[in-house]
Amino acid sequence: MRLRNVKDKEEIIGNSDQVVKDPYKYKGKWKDIFKNNNPIYVEIGSGRCGFIYEFAKNNPNINFIGIEKFKSILALGLKSHEFTSNIRFISIDAIEVDKIFDHEIDRVYLNFSDPWPKKRHEKRRLTSKDYLDKYNDIFDSDRNIYIKTDNRKLFEYSLISLNKEGYIISDIHLDLHNDEINDNINTEYEEKFIKKGMPIYQAIMIKKK
Amino acid sequence: MRLRNVKDKEEIIGNSDQVVKDPYKYKGKWKDIFKNNNPIYVEIGSGRCGFIYEFAKNNPNINFIGIEKFKSILALGLKSHEFTSNIRFISIDAIEVDKIFDHEIDRVYLNFSDPWPKKRHEKRRLTSKDYLDKYNDIFDSDRNIYIKTDNRKLFEYSLISLNKEGYIISDIHLDLHNDEINDNINTEYEEKFIKKGMPIYQAIMIKKK
Repeated sequence: MRLRNVKDKEEIIGNSDQVVKDPYKYKGKWKDIFKNNNPIYVEIGSGRCGFIYEFAKNNPNINFIGIEKFKSILALGLKSHEFTSNIRFISIDAIEVDKIFDHEIDRVYLNFSDPWPKKRHEKRRLTSKDYLDKYNDIFDSDRNIYIKTDNRKLFEYSLISLNKEGYIISDIHLDLHNDEINDNINTEYEEKFIKKGMPIYQAIMIKKK
Repeated sequence: MRLRNVKDKEEIIGNSDQVVKDPYKYKGKWKDIFKNNNPIYVEIGSGRCGFIYEFAKNNPNINFIGIEKFKSILALGLKSHEFTSNIRFISIDAIEVDKIFDHEIDRVYLNFSDPWPKKRHEKRRLTSKDYLDKYNDIFDSDRNIYIKTDNRKLFEYSLISLNKEGYIISDIHLDLHNDEINDNINTEYEEKFIKKGMPIYQAIMIKKK
């Protein structure tokens, strides 16, 4: 996503009740934030919050945490929505994810992640072994990773990488919008790709505890 | 593939040195047929033999067996090629595959298999659990299945089905002809799909012994 600087981003984020300002201190205690025992789903790279906003609104019995490192993008998202009480945001780099959560997450959503196409940047891909090792420490029980992307090479890479680490494909769509699906929530990105007629790839990958 | 009856099919097949007429009696003894200990690769649904013909020609140290139940199609293939000595054909239904081979096959190729799209025909798909159970008895050591298809739903199904049975993705291409590949051999089918600009899906699935 092209970055446009949002001048008052610090103010928007600072004033938002949804943004958890010191997330490190809640490691292992995120249920306290939500004041219930509902499952917690995390979206890494929540962008302008469109996906997580809809998902949280439609699923009041699930808690949602969006991670977005780019403050300008997060600020744009915060300005655009009235969020339900089951949603929080954190502005950290995904590389810190295992410093924030401790065996308390039920699902991870990776929507339209940066493909980092160069081989030398492989470790930065959110489905690399390095990241999968981090996720091991954040999942509560079964490990569920939901991937959606327009990037074919990232998707191919992710399937191989997750398979190698013991995740198996529970569901897969190689052209999501040509299938009959009822529960898809389009991200802002996705809307653009659909208009261009490009295939959207989706997989649900599960590793039983 | 639309079937055209080839009137002299029985004669063509009967006169071919490549066709093994009583394959059941060679169960467990296929190395005797080739008179060497080279690996044996099987293509189930070898159609007009184009793929296996090229592959065998380029790989003299591997033995190839094509299985094609439709005698008219096999006869067309036999008429079209001068085969190398490392290739044989069998005209049986794939459902008999475990009556023909006994722990002596190194790879199975499934190229553009019949998708059997109806749920009630699922068992007929060459990547259903029923078939994977049969393949268990034919592989020598590691189980290697190479899948290539234009049919998106069959490919999605196959990935899930093979993953469930312990195969993992070793390599995958979701638009084969837009990738840089050196060793692909087009089947007769494939040529048509490439001309139409349709994506070809390919996966190498491996289950270690």
